[in-house]
Amino acid sequence: MTSNSIGKIFNFTTWGESHGKAIGCVVDGVPSNINLTEKDIQPYLDKRKPGQSKFTTQRKEEDKVEILSGTFEGKTTGHPISLIVYNQDQRSKDYGDIKSKFRPGHADYTYWKKYGIRDYRGGGRSSARETAMRVAAGAIARKIIKNKIKNQVVITGALIQIGNHKINYDNWNNNFIPKNNFWSPDKEIIKIWENELQTARKSGSSLGAIIEIRVKGLPAGLGEPIYEKIDSDIAKALMSINAVKGVEMGNGFSSVYETGISNVDEMRIKNKKPLFLSNNNGGVLGGITTGQELITRFVVKPTSSILSPKKTINTKLKETTISTKGRHDPCVGIRAVPVGEAMVATTIADHCLRFL
Amino acid sequence: MTSNSIGKIFNFTTWGESHGKAIGCVVDGVPSNINLTEKDIQPYLDKRKPGQSKFTTQRKEEDKVEILSGTFEGKTTGHPISLIVYNQDQRSKDYGDIKSKFRPGHADYTYWKKYGIRDYRGGGRSSARETAMRVAAGAIARKIIKNKIKNQVVITGALIQIGNHKINYDNWNNNFIPKNNFWSPDKEIIKIWENELQTARKSGSSLGAIIEIRVKGLPAGLGEPIYEKIDSDIAKALMSINAVKGVEMGNGFSSVYETGISNVDEMRIKNKKPLFLSNNNGGVLGGITTGQELITRFVVKPTSSILSPKKTINTKLKETTISTKGRHDPCVGIRAVPVGEAMVATTIADHCLRFL
Amino acid sequence: MTSNSIGKIFNFTTWGESHGKAIGCVVDGVPSNINLTEKDIQPYLDKRKPGQSKFTTQRKEEDKVEILSGTFEGKTTGHPISLIVYNQDQRSKDYGDIKSKFRPGHADYTYWKKYGIRDYRGGGRSSARETAMRVAAGAIARKIIKNKIKNQVVITGALIQIGNHKINYDNWNNNFIPKNNFWSPDKEIIKIWENELQTARKSGSSLGAIIEIRVKGLPAGLGEPIYEKIDSDIAKALMSINAVKGVEMGNGFSSVYETGISNVDEMRIKNKKPLFLSNNNGGVLGGITTGQELITRFVVKPTSSILSPKKTINTKLKETTISTKGRHDPCVGIRAVPVGEAMVATTIADHCLRFL
Amino acid sequence: MTSNSIGKIFNFTTWGESHGKAIGCVVDGVPSNINLTEKDIQPYLDKRKPGQSKFTTQRKEEDKVEILSGTFEGKTTGHPISLIVYNQDQRSKDYGDIKSKFRPGHADYTYWKKYGIRDYRGGGRSSARETAMRVAAGAIARKIIKNKIKNQVVITGALIQIGNHKINYDNWNNNFIPKNNFWSPDKEIIKIWENELQTARKSGSSLGAIIEIRVKGLPAGLGEPIYEKIDSDIAKALMSINAVKGVEMGNGFSSVYETGISNVDEMRIKNKKPLFLSNNNGGVLGGITTGQELITRFVVKPTSSILSPKKTINTKLKETTISTKGRHDPCVGIRAVPVGEAMVATTIADHCLRFL
Repeated sequence: MTSNSIGKIFNFTTWGESHGKAIGCVVDGVPSNINLTEKDIQPYLDKRKPGQSKFTTQRKEEDKVEILSGTFEGKTTGHPISLIVYNQDQRSKDYGDIKSKFRPGHADYTYWKKYGIRDYRGGGRSSARETAMRVAAGAIARKIIKNKIKNQVVITGALIQIGNHKINYDNWNNNFIPKNNFWSPDKEIIKIWENELQTARKSGSSLGAIIEIRVKGLPAGLGEPIYEKIDSDIAKALMSINAVKGVEMGNGFSSVYETGISNVDEMRIKNKKPLFLSNNNGGVLGGITTGQELITRFVVKPTSSILSPKKTINTKLKETTISTKGRHDPCVGIRAVPVGEAMVATTIADHCLRFL
Repeated sequence: MTSNSIGKIFNFTTWGESHGKAIGCVVDGVPSNINLTEKDIQPYLDKRKPGQSKFTTQRKEEDKVEILSGTFEGKTTGHPISLIVYNQDQRSKDYGDIKSKFRPGHADYTYWKKYGIRDYRGGGRSSARETAMRVAAGAIARKIIKNKIKNQVVITGALIQIGNHKINYDNWNNNFIPKNNFWSPDKEIIKIWENELQTARKSGSSLGAIIEIRVKGLPAGLGEPIYEKIDSDIAKALMSINAVKGVEMGNGFSSVYETGISNVDEMRIKNKKPLFLSNNNGGVLGGITTGQELITRFVVKPTSSILSPKKTINTKLKETTISTKGRHDPCVGIRAVPVGEAMVATTIADHCLRFL
Repeated sequence: MTSNSIGKIFNFTTWGESHGKAIGCVVDGVPSNINLTEKDIQPYLDKRKPGQSKFTTQRKEEDKVEILSGTFEGKTTGHPISLIVYNQDQRSKDYGDIKSKFRPGHADYTYWKKYGIRDYRGGGRSSARETAMRVAAGAIARKIIKNKIKNQVVITGALIQIGNHKINYDNWNNNFIPKNNFWSPDKEIIKIWENELQTARKSGSSLGAIIEIRVKGLPAGLGEPIYEKIDSDIAKALMSINAVKGVEMGNGFSSVYETGISNVDEMRIKNKKPLFLSNNNGGVLGGITTGQELITRFVVKPTSSILSPKKTINTKLKETTISTKGRHDPCVGIRAVPVGEAMVATTIADHCLRFL
Repeated sequence: MTSNSIGKIFNFTTWGESHGKAIGCVVDGVPSNINLTEKDIQPYLDKRKPGQSKFTTQRKEEDKVEILSGTFEGKTTGHPISLIVYNQDQRSKDYGDIKSKFRPGHADYTYWKKYGIRDYRGGGRSSARETAMRVAAGAIARKIIKNKIKNQVVITGALIQIGNHKINYDNWNNNFIPKNNFWSPDKEIIKIWENELQTARKSGSSLGAIIEIRVKGLPAGLGEPIYEKIDSDIAKALMSINAVKGVEMGNGFSSVYETGISNVDEMRIKNKKPLFLSNNNGGVLGGITTGQELITRFVVKPTSSILSPKKTINTKLKETTISTKGRHDPCVGIRAVPVGEAMVATTIADHCLRFL
């Protein structure tokens, strides 16, 4: 059953396992005559790259992306763009426990049940390594959005909560986001998060996180009614990211605490143009963009790969325990920021090509 | 652009406007030789029907469903099943304000921007009336699930929160759910919700709600990796329901308050079968069912159609106000319960047909 | 498994059985603000209608089409257009032989093998009655083509061969086509065909036919490379019509008698525009229109429903014979002309919406 | 617009240009636990490889295929299989005429009109080099068919006509097919074809061909009614091959010379199983396999790349002439045999996975 592709007009297909020869992506539906080289993609892969701070895994993944097709003399040709990143570390090594034990919280058990065979090396296809190619596709999506929308569209992802500690929205500073290891928009929370993560790591545990993605500059009219609403497509795209357990738009789950009076976004005219007096709906009504800022959030559960030993079973259905040694992110949510941006970008690019 | 269909193998397409001649649905991908008559579908439409209590709209919609194709002598033939419900009330009437004003919180403005034309009568295609056909498709989906899965699968939707008031999970009683106007599993909260809704209605306002859907009896192995995970498909399906602003699986957004230690679902063996010691992940790992209960929740924003006058603009881009008179649900979330159940059922049926 | 829809952007789904309550079609992807009423569709259904001459079946099918959704005040709204045609003759009657015997040359046996159940009344879903809805969708497709392409696009279907008798291309007269019962462009062949069909009918037999569809006025650039070439989409669309056994473009199978020198279409400049000196490729190169006339042909096998008794088996796997009494077309190819036009129109409309 | 993928359940996406870095293919929907290594694929690429006789181009393409993902310890894992073939000859060279002139009969002009940019090196994406990846996907399709169908399924492609010279079916010998440079089943025609091709080559011209594909061992029941009939899917798949101008099933265009009496395939019972007394329909009725041999044919036009100078225009819309020097197949139809087999195999594999 095919399930490694997403998008209707802007569509990409990813392939590859964590410890296979390479991972890659075929991006189809890209209009012709857009400037595109590896330099447009590499920075986003670098942004997602692990080992950038002590709060992300110290594994070295030199993810050098190569364009194998679909461009000519630095421009897209309208034909599929094949991207490849060779895996650095393919030495055969002892995968020990992972080979026969199911890591709780991971897809090990469900893949084994479904397929009866499993590339256990680093999680194989279920590894978050796959998200590198989403980020690559997202970089191409950004080029399309720029090409199709006259306004400058800015997609900003930020970490807004780790564990119990949420940012103060009053401190939100876009400029600060790329200057810290957490993609935090709030300078004051950094110390708190650092302490929390140190504590989690020392106790062999991990923390969850919430990411917010904001998109400025979108025109009204993106999205299709009923089953391909831009928000339902975003929900699907974000929920498909490893470890994501929830997605919301605008006020999201907090809407339950609003009333009809407080929650509808009233309209006025300013400079002869429609103006919304609030943005409780996150820039989407009836599945179609309003022209306001699009706002979405998703939650990433605490990393399941932890040092603390956990009860599990093995492929012989015997009880055992497992402890994940080695370098792992105490909060995978941090690295999910560029991935979430990419998934929003690819969804928007897809709807741009349907509409514009 | 096509966007009125959902599902890959079990697929349905809905059509029709709130105040057009009829609404309908074509369900394709239904296996042959399944018993099916209108009697299998009508009860679910009745369940969704408005006017059942004073907390849902008093409009009379006698939604009598008719099967036009795809069955022969009471059994499915493997060919598309066409369902139709004629709209009762098509008299031309004065639509007054709605004709030229955009109701805030509704799709009026975005549809007008996107299409340049709009069937304003009752919201036209953007009306929640469309969800009647989702419920009809859901009834057929349930028949397929029953046909394909040996275990008895039970899909239970319940309202768990209105406004500030959340049920007490300790009081959860499945038997009580169909016996009250709210689909509440908690008898003790009824009075509170009634009072809240009375207050909201009197003040010309409305309230939001959270719905939880639980599915018992699913086998391990349903769902496809990467971009067609069962949870990302559920997220898309639920987010596509009118007024839904968030979707979550298992612990959902509360995962952020968990740690890696508390959140992973440990495994043991019981009666020679795998047993999970908790269900924080809502029965899905890596996008594939674990064999545990599947748990998902979604939030419905407060009804946007309220009596209180709200600032808005009209199609001539002039400022004005609008007040929605007439019979409207003070909490549309209540009627979203059977719709949510239906969308989960259709998603599961689709994945059953891919896997089983 | 879903298979009752066709088209990517302009998409339609048909439903209904020959002797069920109704047949219908949901057309999605139609742009908004196109004038559309039943009057735009009915003439094409009338053109396909049986009983127009003694060479098509004398059954009376008053195919009155009704639009149930997707238009407002005579214009399309961008939402799905639901069409319905009620079947006239649903009286229960004795279906006799057909109930248990497989008609050779029909889908009776294969449907029974595949589904284990079969609506035998008039062939049920496999009846050519389904093509009425293709013709209806084709009428809407024509409106889209007109809306999207500035040139006047003219789609002309014609019968060019019945049995051994092929038209003389030198006699081709577009004006004559709608003026005869055969959609023949050649006045001189009429008598011959009439005699042939009389002879076939009297001997309890039937004849095959070849239909040619020509499309004038298309711009260069329609069609997508590799797997969604406009000619491969046309091949699929035409081959899906009942009784069609072959499809070709331009010189088609006769290309085998050409050489590289004779077959390539040389180019010149005329009035500062590219000019092709021939059209051996039927207006398509590399799956994309050249701006020349698009030319395609398909063959319809002789009607399988014939009076002469034929050997067959029944559902109990016993040997028997069957003779199809009643009114049947001695050459179904005649009525395939408007159906072929419709399938070409829908394919072109789909590619227009991708490109223009 | 996406158009580089084909297939619903068994699906593959190709990428790459004739003279780019590499060409490749991502095959999705392959069931797990099927033995698969490069050794299963390479022989089919070798079969398609040019330079095998003086009647196919003498270019050296060492098409070494590499599996980059989707297998583990020699077995498929259920995840996408990425295949790559690096292009040998990427030296920059003088492409001369091709850069600015449109080769008549090729996609040069239509690609340029559609995309406004064109990788002119060897035809870029429009080159028949893309078909190498179809052959690779076809090799995987064959493994699936073997895995899903109990009978031994044999797919046999053969050249049955070059120019005016058609094989004698009475001489058909399956064993001879792989033993000659033409994939001819008829030993006696070889000399004639050799002479014809020599003559064509010497006169700077080329010849067309007809290929027949036969599939033995298929069960009844493959194929979906209405718009995904197995024959309409085959028509689409074969018509998408470069230079193909027509496709037919069973008697195909010759059906026009049959009558209802002669053309229906009568049925009897033999050894308690249904038996067809003829196979005029090519093993398909109503779009579904009958259990007989499936028979399809397609025509490949004469190679458009010929030495004889032809009139054309250039990108500045000036008149000019072009003569294609270098090594080119005088009959591309010969190398289309393994490609046609592959497209039939992938279509059948797709329908196997839907049905079995």
